[in-house]
Amino acid sequence: MSTFTKHLSLADLQSHPSGGDGETPILKASTDARAKDYAGICCPLTTDAWRARWRAMCLLPADDGHDKVAIERRAEAWRATPAFERDEVTMTRLDEAEGVVAFASDWLELDAGDDWVRHDSETALLQELAYASYLNITSAILPPPKHRSQIASYARAVNICLNAVPYMELSVMIPIYDPVMLHVSSSAGSASSAATVSSPSILFSDEPSVATWEMWDAIRTVCEYNPRLTLTLDLTPPMPSVISVLSQWSAEPVRHIFLPASTFIANAKGYPVLPKVVQGFIRDIMKLRPNVILSGTTAGRHKNGGEVVYSQYVRHIEKTSPAYKASKTEGTVENFAQGYQDYLQAPLQPLMDNLQSMTYQTFEQDPVKYRQYEEAVYAAITEWPNKTDKLILCVAGAGRGPLVARCLKALQRANRDGSIYALEKNPNAYVTLQQRVRDDWGESVKLFFGDMRTFDLPEKVDILVSELLGSFGDNELSPECLDGAMRFLKPEGISIPASYTAHIAPLSSSKLFNETRGTKDVKAAETPYVVMFQAINILSGNGGGLSGNCGPKVQECWEFEHPRKDAVLNEQGLPPTNSHNARSAQLTFHIPHAGILHGLAGYFEAVLYRNIGLSIHPDRMQYISKNMLSWFPLLFPFKEPLYLPSSSELHVSIWRLTNQRQVWYEWYAEAFLPVPGSTSIRATADAESIRPSRSDSRDGGLAVARSDSREGWLSVRSTPVLSPSPMADAVDIPPIEIDSNAAVDGDAVKNNIGLIKIGQTSLHNPKGRSSWIGL
Amino acid sequence: MSTFTKHLSLADLQSHPSGGDGETPILKASTDARAKDYAGICCPLTTDAWRARWRAMCLLPADDGHDKVAIERRAEAWRATPAFERDEVTMTRLDEAEGVVAFASDWLELDAGDDWVRHDSETALLQELAYASYLNITSAILPPPKHRSQIASYARAVNICLNAVPYMELSVMIPIYDPVMLHVSSSAGSASSAATVSSPSILFSDEPSVATWEMWDAIRTVCEYNPRLTLTLDLTPPMPSVISVLSQWSAEPVRHIFLPASTFIANAKGYPVLPKVVQGFIRDIMKLRPNVILSGTTAGRHKNGGEVVYSQYVRHIEKTSPAYKASKTEGTVENFAQGYQDYLQAPLQPLMDNLQSMTYQTFEQDPVKYRQYEEAVYAAITEWPNKTDKLILCVAGAGRGPLVARCLKALQRANRDGSIYALEKNPNAYVTLQQRVRDDWGESVKLFFGDMRTFDLPEKVDILVSELLGSFGDNELSPECLDGAMRFLKPEGISIPASYTAHIAPLSSSKLFNETRGTKDVKAAETPYVVMFQAINILSGNGGGLSGNCGPKVQECWEFEHPRKDAVLNEQGLPPTNSHNARSAQLTFHIPHAGILHGLAGYFEAVLYRNIGLSIHPDRMQYISKNMLSWFPLLFPFKEPLYLPSSSELHVSIWRLTNQRQVWYEWYAEAFLPVPGSTSIRATADAESIRPSRSDSRDGGLAVARSDSREGWLSVRSTPVLSPSPMADAVDIPPIEIDSNAAVDGDAVKNNIGLIKIGQTSLHNPKGRSSWIGL
Repeated sequence: MSTFTKHLSLADLQSHPSGGDGETPILKASTDARAKDYAGICCPLTTDAWRARWRAMCLLPADDGHDKVAIERRAEAWRATPAFERDEVTMTRLDEAEGVVAFASDWLELDAGDDWVRHDSETALLQELAYASYLNITSAILPPPKHRSQIASYARAVNICLNAVPYMELSVMIPIYDPVMLHVSSSAGSASSAATVSSPSILFSDEPSVATWEMWDAIRTVCEYNPRLTLTLDLTPPMPSVISVLSQWSAEPVRHIFLPASTFIANAKGYPVLPKVVQGFIRDIMKLRPNVILSGTTAGRHKNGGEVVYSQYVRHIEKTSPAYKASKTEGTVENFAQGYQDYLQAPLQPLMDNLQSMTYQTFEQDPVKYRQYEEAVYAAITEWPNKTDKLILCVAGAGRGPLVARCLKALQRANRDGSIYALEKNPNAYVTLQQRVRDDWGESVKLFFGDMRTFDLPEKVDILVSELLGSFGDNELSPECLDGAMRFLKPEGISIPASYTAHIAPLSSSKLFNETRGTKDVKAAETPYVVMFQAINILSGNGGGLSGNCGPKVQECWEFEHPRKDAVLNEQGLPPTNSHNARSAQLTFHIPHAGILHGLAGYFEAVLYRNIGLSIHPDRMQYISKNMLSWFPLLFPFKEPLYLPSSSELHVSIWRLTNQRQVWYEWYAEAFLPVPGSTSIRATADAESIRPSRSDSRDGGLAVARSDSREGWLSVRSTPVLSPSPMADAVDIPPIEIDSNAAVDGDAVKNNIGLIKIGQTSLHNPKGRSSWIGL
Repeated sequence: MSTFTKHLSLADLQSHPSGGDGETPILKASTDARAKDYAGICCPLTTDAWRARWRAMCLLPADDGHDKVAIERRAEAWRATPAFERDEVTMTRLDEAEGVVAFASDWLELDAGDDWVRHDSETALLQELAYASYLNITSAILPPPKHRSQIASYARAVNICLNAVPYMELSVMIPIYDPVMLHVSSSAGSASSAATVSSPSILFSDEPSVATWEMWDAIRTVCEYNPRLTLTLDLTPPMPSVISVLSQWSAEPVRHIFLPASTFIANAKGYPVLPKVVQGFIRDIMKLRPNVILSGTTAGRHKNGGEVVYSQYVRHIEKTSPAYKASKTEGTVENFAQGYQDYLQAPLQPLMDNLQSMTYQTFEQDPVKYRQYEEAVYAAITEWPNKTDKLILCVAGAGRGPLVARCLKALQRANRDGSIYALEKNPNAYVTLQQRVRDDWGESVKLFFGDMRTFDLPEKVDILVSELLGSFGDNELSPECLDGAMRFLKPEGISIPASYTAHIAPLSSSKLFNETRGTKDVKAAETPYVVMFQAINILSGNGGGLSGNCGPKVQECWEFEHPRKDAVLNEQGLPPTNSHNARSAQLTFHIPHAGILHGLAGYFEAVLYRNIGLSIHPDRMQYISKNMLSWFPLLFPFKEPLYLPSSSELHVSIWRLTNQRQVWYEWYAEAFLPVPGSTSIRATADAESIRPSRSDSRDGGLAVARSDSREGWLSVRSTPVLSPSPMADAVDIPPIEIDSNAAVDGDAVKNNIGLIKIGQTSLHNPKGRSSWIGL
């Protein structure tokens, strides 16, 4: 659960009565707050006296009536040894400061246009944080940035502070929404630069709340994702009217939520409640367990309920969140996997490693997966054309036997005679299987010890059942293992699963980014991980984007089918090479709101039999295999964050590659910005049509035709080729007409939407150098 | 000088007669070529027989008349163990292959849309390169990419090849210009992906030649700037009409220039000459010393001159290039500094380190710098108001005495009586100075040993002369040293130099990028270097860009003046802190053509006295101090390359920071794309006006006014603030009117040009962690 902290202004502190026994106003306020179930208080570190002195020293008066040299001498003396007077700070004792969240002076201008104001604000902030550190304060909130044009200076100063106070958490106050915060001006404040042209421009963004996020992003990037740098989200009105643009905050290190009484509205009975959009936001952000700083709750702004109802109400909102409710419900992933949120796990390699009994036990607890398997086997049996023969099933990779038990159950339910071959290559699990044959299964189950890629069964089987799937479908080498096991099947036999697909979506998560690069091993950032996602934001949206070329939010990469159609096999019934299990996908995602790309989320979906399946696809799992526990998604991390503006397109390439000994993934992304066309387009749309997909037979004619158009090194390239002439260097190449016939879908061309490349990642895990799966 | 290689096609090889004594056609061709002053030959590695076999195996026939299974079996057998037949390769012997540049099969389609064609092309390329490696061939040229939409797959295959053949240089053939190469299509060829929408889009670019560069950039980025990956620029017509867009190639590793006879035109006498734009390009690119592959020179395309005139003509072009001529001229930087091109040097720290006599000797060779100093001192003396008094000069930091000698000369020329105080802190150079007093100067020069920041001279002087400047002006701590030396000056005294400015421009250079990150020490990429630039491209252009806010190509960061105006000093005449020597600049550059940002070029300009100066500003140095040798520019490297699209804006922040012991620079950049406005703008231009620059006195009134508008944490933010109401979440915040009065220059706002952020670098050298200058 989240915690609550009570905010006290300077006025609140001054009006607070001291308690007896030397209890200072601030101690009394802390005691009072804790009595009302607050975790503590939050207050300014400095007083108006400090503000007055700083301004008298550091802001030169406009008129000439003052002795500017004397003022400057005082300022220089302070800059040389910055120090407070007693009446300039709100706290002096360790017991006063204990557990206090301190606001640094909010009038400091780290992003002022004036060099001296900025310089002296930084000096003052360092002085304040050093004093807070002296008092053992562990959490300080910094004043929000105000000028986009000076964000780099603001961020640089914050970075200096992070380095100067080595143990303190610094939290930058950012309004989640600020309708005026869309401004970037160039060259402002450049010192004595004669050459700069200075005029403001508009920083584009579809929504003001993205604009404030963008400032935060610039700050933490400059601070290199320092884990001691966190966010204090300011929910002071106004609020945006749409919740969708707020999801970017859920991928950020939100430490505090600043929630003033003025954000609350009165319900019909006069009690404070939150507007719907804020309710929705709070409900969502509470999964990050922030500290909620309540402010102004004693001012009597709402006529009923008094101080305590504000926190009670927020707690109520939290408890009605789906994530909270799911975590309290038996049988949900959220309940099953508590504590695993955003925890990086190396994917299992059950082919190379023999699993532990504990690992089998954990996965056998899944009530949904084995139910789905039983239903699939049952359906296959009941639909089996020949109703009289004894059916032979094979469980390839039987483990400790859960699928064997389900197959027996299905036979029993269908009232069919049948026997089961159970094949397992883990010698330890094989002992457990023998135990179960003796105790539970008897003669209907025959055990075999061996690797399905090389072992020979005594006879062909009707139904082959396997559970070799990983979070990305094929990432535990199910395709390669089943290539071997397909020898067991009769020609009309079926495989359960029949097929499976891999899916990805681009995601943002400052936490996961920090985790993957946390180990100093650079390879850690090129390895896929199994993760139960929590503090993430999926960046893609549905809809085709401006160009009309983008796919949905989560997109399919590729598919595997069993048995394969038209497979070429050798005398042993095995494929001569593993080339047919290589895959690649190039997917185009629409990015509706600006965000930072940190990785790709990977999911799978499997067809067990007909309409019975397994899915961890976030939008479909609830319809296909709700509450299935066995698989968390896969994370393909990126080593370097990639900034994606609002309305951009992300082109993701991902490959499944293989050699004789290994399988691995490589991934890569490029960012484009679609913009309306201009007269500078000189291209013709390439006459290349859609290629046949891999599961179709290859159309060699097409490839030949293309090859034929390029003969030898000296051949001309496509059209038009202008012969050189003595005039060649004086004549411009004329613009080429856009050939609308050549475009498969002419809309994008007709609408004149062009793509401007704006960035790319590096290629991750080239040649499987960081991670691979052993064959 | 560059080298020449003769290209031979398959037809050329077949028609070449064998020599006697077992000399094969290829040996004979090599011998013939060397006899004509070629460095060697360049030819295809494989024959048409290989092409025929590959196609028969790997491209399935469209009709059904063939045994597809048999074809697939052959292909699988080949994929399992790829190997050549004798007649499929052009060379079999080590002596045949010696010195040959080999073309990989140009019909391979590494970027085909079809997964299998791509897979088998990669397998074939690996086979070819393995064979070339077996024959000890060290340089292979790869077929050009053709489909922008498959560039990631192309690049990934090249990366696989680089890793598979560990010693070979792989050179990607890229046309410098291709009017049809502007195409990007999304999602094409994704394997069996049901979800993707496939239609081509246009990849925007202002010029086709930028589009081909952009493909190269994507490839080498995927290949992580592998130093064995180089470029073969294909100059096959057509050529662009403008040379400016070709400059991007000069920052790339151009290993070969492919120059067919068809690029040459005939002059009035029928001899082959190059069109002007190609001449200009060749002249420029020759500084990189590429190998020129001449092709088709024996075909008799031009009626006069024969084969040899092509290379003779290109050599002639090379020799008329300014860079070549300068390198052959005594007294030029190019001649003086041969071998130092693109070589990274750590900047001197003459304050912390005592220089060697050799270092002084090198810099004393500069004929221009000391002439300028003498002219400045002479001008100051002749203009001195009091014509009768004896003048007292001080050389602060006399080194081995070159400025002392020039000051004496100036006094002599002006026929003025005067004496010179020479102060030096290097005890070793001080010995040389004593020697010169005894041998050359006599009593007119008085020597003092000490640091100008603390030493006291016996009397005040009229003219203070110093040469403490670095490549960036202040980067050898001239400001801090002269702060101390200003005590020596009489109130009306003058300093030579009177002022200096620092300048930067964004640059691209794959070579320098590789050099700065070459050392495994990450700090190396956050350190400024002194570099004589060669293989670089300045990315910025003149003109204000679309937003109208951009400054010129090279922009001024800041200035230092001596003596300082209104300086506050302590009893010793010294500044109490070094705050006044902190500086910052935020500069906006217009990037006309797409490029990769690798660093900032740093320059300085100094006013010695009135219009006499020193400059290494690339566009002004020739007018101010032509042929000055003492300073190469500074390079501020970026750790990660930043892609900048055509017509983008680069916002650079650079700081000169200081504490009590150190001075350091930090730098950072953000990229924006200006786009025409849309109705989604909801911002008002910020009412912030241009701040007073640092050299003006600070106008506290302005700052106070701004501070006063924000009182306390709970204050409303600017305008407009809508009070929350029960309806708040149902009502959209209305768009805010743009207040044109608030804009300093309303043009950008009126023209509705907005900036979309598209990327940023990290902050470099934060807190001076990688490099600093000791005080």
